[in-house]
Amino acid sequence: MRFRLTPRDVAFFDLFAASGSQLVVGADLLAQLIAAPPPDRLRFAERLRDAEHEADQSAHEIMRRLNQTFVTPFDRDDIYRLASALDDCMDAMEAAGDLIVLYQVDDLPEEVGTQVATLQRAAELTADVMPKLRTMGEEVRAYWIEINRLENEADRAYRDLLALLFQSPKYQESPAAVIEMVKLKDVIDTLEQAADSFETVAHQVEALFLKES
Amino acid sequence: MRFRLTPRDVAFFDLFAASGSQLVVGADLLAQLIAAPPPDRLRFAERLRDAEHEADQSAHEIMRRLNQTFVTPFDRDDIYRLASALDDCMDAMEAAGDLIVLYQVDDLPEEVGTQVATLQRAAELTADVMPKLRTMGEEVRAYWIEINRLENEADRAYRDLLALLFQSPKYQESPAAVIEMVKLKDVIDTLEQAADSFETVAHQVEALFLKES
Amino acid sequence: MRFRLTPRDVAFFDLFAASGSQLVVGADLLAQLIAAPPPDRLRFAERLRDAEHEADQSAHEIMRRLNQTFVTPFDRDDIYRLASALDDCMDAMEAAGDLIVLYQVDDLPEEVGTQVATLQRAAELTADVMPKLRTMGEEVRAYWIEINRLENEADRAYRDLLALLFQSPKYQESPAAVIEMVKLKDVIDTLEQAADSFETVAHQVEALFLKES
Repeated sequence: MRFRLTPRDVAFFDLFAASGSQLVVGADLLAQLIAAPPPDRLRFAERLRDAEHEADQSAHEIMRRLNQTFVTPFDRDDIYRLASALDDCMDAMEAAGDLIVLYQVDDLPEEVGTQVATLQRAAELTADVMPKLRTMGEEVRAYWIEINRLENEADRAYRDLLALLFQSPKYQESPAAVIEMVKLKDVIDTLEQAADSFETVAHQVEALFLKES
Repeated sequence: MRFRLTPRDVAFFDLFAASGSQLVVGADLLAQLIAAPPPDRLRFAERLRDAEHEADQSAHEIMRRLNQTFVTPFDRDDIYRLASALDDCMDAMEAAGDLIVLYQVDDLPEEVGTQVATLQRAAELTADVMPKLRTMGEEVRAYWIEINRLENEADRAYRDLLALLFQSPKYQESPAAVIEMVKLKDVIDTLEQAADSFETVAHQVEALFLKES
Repeated sequence: MRFRLTPRDVAFFDLFAASGSQLVVGADLLAQLIAAPPPDRLRFAERLRDAEHEADQSAHEIMRRLNQTFVTPFDRDDIYRLASALDDCMDAMEAAGDLIVLYQVDDLPEEVGTQVATLQRAAELTADVMPKLRTMGEEVRAYWIEINRLENEADRAYRDLLALLFQSPKYQESPAAVIEMVKLKDVIDTLEQAADSFETVAHQVEALFLKES
């Protein structure tokens, strides 16, 4: 049973809800980026950078309130860890989009689409659960269970891509082909980091649930 | 002088002891993996994945108890950091074994054996010290001093391997040889991360010792 | 308004001031290393390693005091995070210098100089602000604003270098040229990590300012 929320508490939950929504915006922009013809991708990367700046401001505002509020709705360190993890998700998604354009990796292997689709789904679930932290009911359990399943899916896609990059003769034809492989590895590593960050968010939500329920 | 341990406290120490034992199992499986003929390695990688799942459950159980226990034997954040660091050791060892098989790096340089041997030794020492956290006597000092020495040893092996990978003409013969180098670098980087994680465990044990003694 | 500092408090601030000064020493050695003719670089790398050992001892002493002092001038976790972030800056700078020598990357692209110059500037600002944490006046604000600007500068240099490494025909001429590219990417990645670590220091200083003012 939760205490009645104070206006200050409401501010924290609103900020976490905003962070969740920003992750959905970011993941969707990343999906549009990889689906776009290469010449059109810069536009999506720029919008993704704007989304990352907004997410950065939400995280910053949470930290500011954390350091200036005497009584917080959750343990201070838990709020810090949750805000940091949400910020890491956005940073990794923005970095991946940025690298795809910077590296001019025009020809993305199909399973990169799987990596990004799992990030979209993870972002949606995260945006859905943030408001539920107020009441911390049983439905919060479903969140981390599903994120864990998605992270396993992202992991499988990542490993399939590693096998492709390192085994396919396509990337061994010439020095230029090896460079293409190194670029792609950087991109898929960053997408995997984003998936791992969503799992960290899920662990933090689980920790909060166990403490508050 | 420590307070008499409650049954709840005993549960924490038993879980840390279990985590320590799982690290020994994991390190030994990794050693068997690299010593095995390449076609036999998959079997060890699968067993290593099972060991990692068990370690994950121990870490999860520690976190669960941490969030649901009012009085903990150590500071809550210290328990969290120790459990996270132990989990990181196992994750890195499992990842290294997984990559060796996924990448089909059949021909491992000799000093990879040194990296893995130091991890085995670090795991044994860690398994030994976990039960000693109950009484936190002077013998705990020897633990972090020896882990630090092992980490320096792992570091030297890692740097020798980097020099080999980047200087040896063997990896410059063809695009395929460069790809082999990139695979091996990924493997040795992951083994170095495992060594660094053991050092983080040692730092955390030292912090606990300084607080509790 | 800050409470009158106790001798124990003074010890913490002196240690943070020492850490700041060590970062200046380290950044300057790194700058001298990259400016030196390749045969002379080993000497600077060895001095950089010594500087890193000293920084390690400062961090260690802060942790020791943290775990043995009942009343600390700041929240315990904040001191821990600040000390860790300062240590990460030095570790990354030392690692970069070490790799440049180990990898024998004789021919460093020009913008590596920009990366290192921003680290020097960040180190100077950090050394300047550490003593100001005692009084935590308004001039502390300028610190994190300027570090953020420097980190953006470092980021631009890093991205320009990535574009160079991955687009320039120079690194696609032969397998050996690709290996050179992989080495350089490792070096610039490590320098970027150092810049990120200074930003983490700045975030931590900002958090302390918000709490204490």
